Amino acid sequence: VNRSKRRDSESRVTTPLNLAFVGFGLVARRFLELLIVHRQRLAAEHALGWRMLGVATARHGAALFPSDTEPRQVVAAAETGTLSHLLATGQGSPPETTLEFLRLIHGVDNLVVVENTPLGLDGGQPGVDHVRTALAGGADVITANKSPAAFAYRELRDLAVTNRCRFLFEGAVLDGLPVFSLLRHTLPALRVRGFRGIVNTTTNHVLSAMEHGDTIDDAVTAMQTAGVAEADPSKDIDGWDAAAKTAVLANALMDAEITPHDVDREGLSSVTVDDVQASRRNGKRIKIVASAKRDGHKVVAAARPVELDGNDPLAGLTGTAKGLELDTDLLGRIHISKPSSGVDHTAYALLADLVEVNRRRIEQS
Amino acid sequence: VNRSKRRDSESRVTTPLNLAFVGFGLVARRFLELLIVHRQRLAAEHALGWRMLGVATARHGAALFPSDTEPRQVVAAAETGTLSHLLATGQGSPPETTLEFLRLIHGVDNLVVVENTPLGLDGGQPGVDHVRTALAGGADVITANKSPAAFAYRELRDLAVTNRCRFLFEGAVLDGLPVFSLLRHTLPALRVRGFRGIVNTTTNHVLSAMEHGDTIDDAVTAMQTAGVAEADPSKDIDGWDAAAKTAVLANALMDAEITPHDVDREGLSSVTVDDVQASRRNGKRIKIVASAKRDGHKVVAAARPVELDGNDPLAGLTGTAKGLELDTDLLGRIHISKPSSGVDHTAYALLADLVEVNRRRIEQS
Repeated sequence: VNRSKRRDSESRVTTPLNLAFVGFGLVARRFLELLIVHRQRLAAEHALGWRMLGVATARHGAALFPSDTEPRQVVAAAETGTLSHLLATGQGSPPETTLEFLRLIHGVDNLVVVENTPLGLDGGQPGVDHVRTALAGGADVITANKSPAAFAYRELRDLAVTNRCRFLFEGAVLDGLPVFSLLRHTLPALRVRGFRGIVNTTTNHVLSAMEHGDTIDDAVTAMQTAGVAEADPSKDIDGWDAAAKTAVLANALMDAEITPHDVDREGLSSVTVDDVQASRRNGKRIKIVASAKRDGHKVVAAARPVELDGNDPLAGLTGTAKGLELDTDLLGRIHISKPSSGVDHTAYALLADLVEVNRRRIEQS
Repeated sequence: VNRSKRRDSESRVTTPLNLAFVGFGLVARRFLELLIVHRQRLAAEHALGWRMLGVATARHGAALFPSDTEPRQVVAAAETGTLSHLLATGQGSPPETTLEFLRLIHGVDNLVVVENTPLGLDGGQPGVDHVRTALAGGADVITANKSPAAFAYRELRDLAVTNRCRFLFEGAVLDGLPVFSLLRHTLPALRVRGFRGIVNTTTNHVLSAMEHGDTIDDAVTAMQTAGVAEADPSKDIDGWDAAAKTAVLANALMDAEITPHDVDREGLSSVTVDDVQASRRNGKRIKIVASAKRDGHKVVAAARPVELDGNDPLAGLTGTAKGLELDTDLLGRIHISKPSSGVDHTAYALLADLVEVNRRRIEQS
């Protein structure tokens, strides 16, 4: 019975999605591994099939793969530092830039561009151009990159609507915790009046270490040794990562039309170990809180250190925990959080976005 | 521009939903009020239109309304105790029972039955029969009643699938907090391994009062005076309400196929003020926790007093707060909660269900 059930389900997959990866760092590779491991589950439960079309990276070149390329090979090549060699064996003359790669695949059927390049604070580049070019070519876009929705949400959303494509970025803010899909699919006809959230792991970790007496530098060094913090954690420590996430939330949930530069941003530089420990002794906690609220027709957004009461649900989010409290008109305050998070969860967010892309393609076909 | 936008959106409503109410207590009336107040929003954003077809109640009779009946009239009649008179003016000879009413409307186009009768511990009646009869007649069913999914989830789900109908009950467990739609729409290809939740307001309130030295009886009396507790709160105090909600969660999220009688249930009778206060002094908290986990092929479910650590997110849910922690395979633990809840939020859950019913009808047409 199980076998015939599975065959039925697999036969539901009529048109596999063609995945084009832009950026192929840790998140993209974990996403691809998830797709490999759960191929059956995705086919059986969501009529979702997929193949790898190609990869474009800034450092290792770009290529369309021969159709017999095994996805595992691509992951292995990236893990062992031989991605450049693999890409050199691609079909035809390789595109020289990522934008050239994206133009080359314009018009491919069932095309999904998986964009995962780093946060760019100068106009959200290169992410914004990648997403714009992909959507213009009729591709659906899924991304864990904050830049596109932080810097050009409204333009890209409208472009997606015009071209009947999806522009999805569930993993950009809270790893796999559903936020944008939560609003889209489970909270209809409701208005978000504001939000408060813990969205940056590095500063949250550092603040926990400071409660135990570590300096910021000690804490960052320890996290880099453990592989949790970036080689250059300045975007975290200076609050830019949190500000970018705040902009994404404000744009997508409140139609704010702001960029990270409009967010009242303050990092950890003004926070001392004494502050953190004194706050803790008073039963409180200092956290970098991402927040926004309406002020007349404007949305006022901030990402800065805030002293929270001990019984504030956000105060309990320590270490890699992340969470968000939404203030809504029809349902009051809603809190959603996860006690831990990491790259596997961000990869899951891309998987959830891919399932939504597939569902919409089935509905529209 | 706004006006023409609105006209466009209203014209999207092609086939209004025909709403038949079974049970017309506080939740149903608040739901109807929400629909009246947000008629424009639902039309513009969700192409949802509706009209009232009729009402069936156990005490005031049943009737199909003349098409010029104003929904506000019906709410007003229920609030002022004149619902019986209004129903007596209904079309044709009035059906004598609710089941007769449901059979009378079999086959009506775009029919949605809004079932809100009380929890029945004897086989989940009358809710199970209401939902079964409605689905068999091709109606979509939305309900905040726990009984159907607590006692007959699998049968009713399968009947709905066979008849291409919806059987939705978002408001049955956590008022308006999305749980079932969360899994359905935002967490694809993922397995729920277990859950823990705070799901009963009365016992949660009573336990908070006991922390301040009140006895159970004092606390219940105060809540009844405030209109928060039922005239007969025994189903809450004995743990039946929590057990029924546990069964709904286990059935819908883990395909457990259990009833409330299979839940390891213990109410507040064994809990003393001394226990509650001693726990609090130790930085802990006693709560009625609804939980389930897999044990081989079985699902083991409980609804009973548990002493929680002070830093457990569930421990912070006091008064009318509700919340749930899901343990999942692909995303670890997810916590969702609301600091307060009430009948308006349960009514919102019905609205969310109605929007989903409408979306599916549009997709299928």
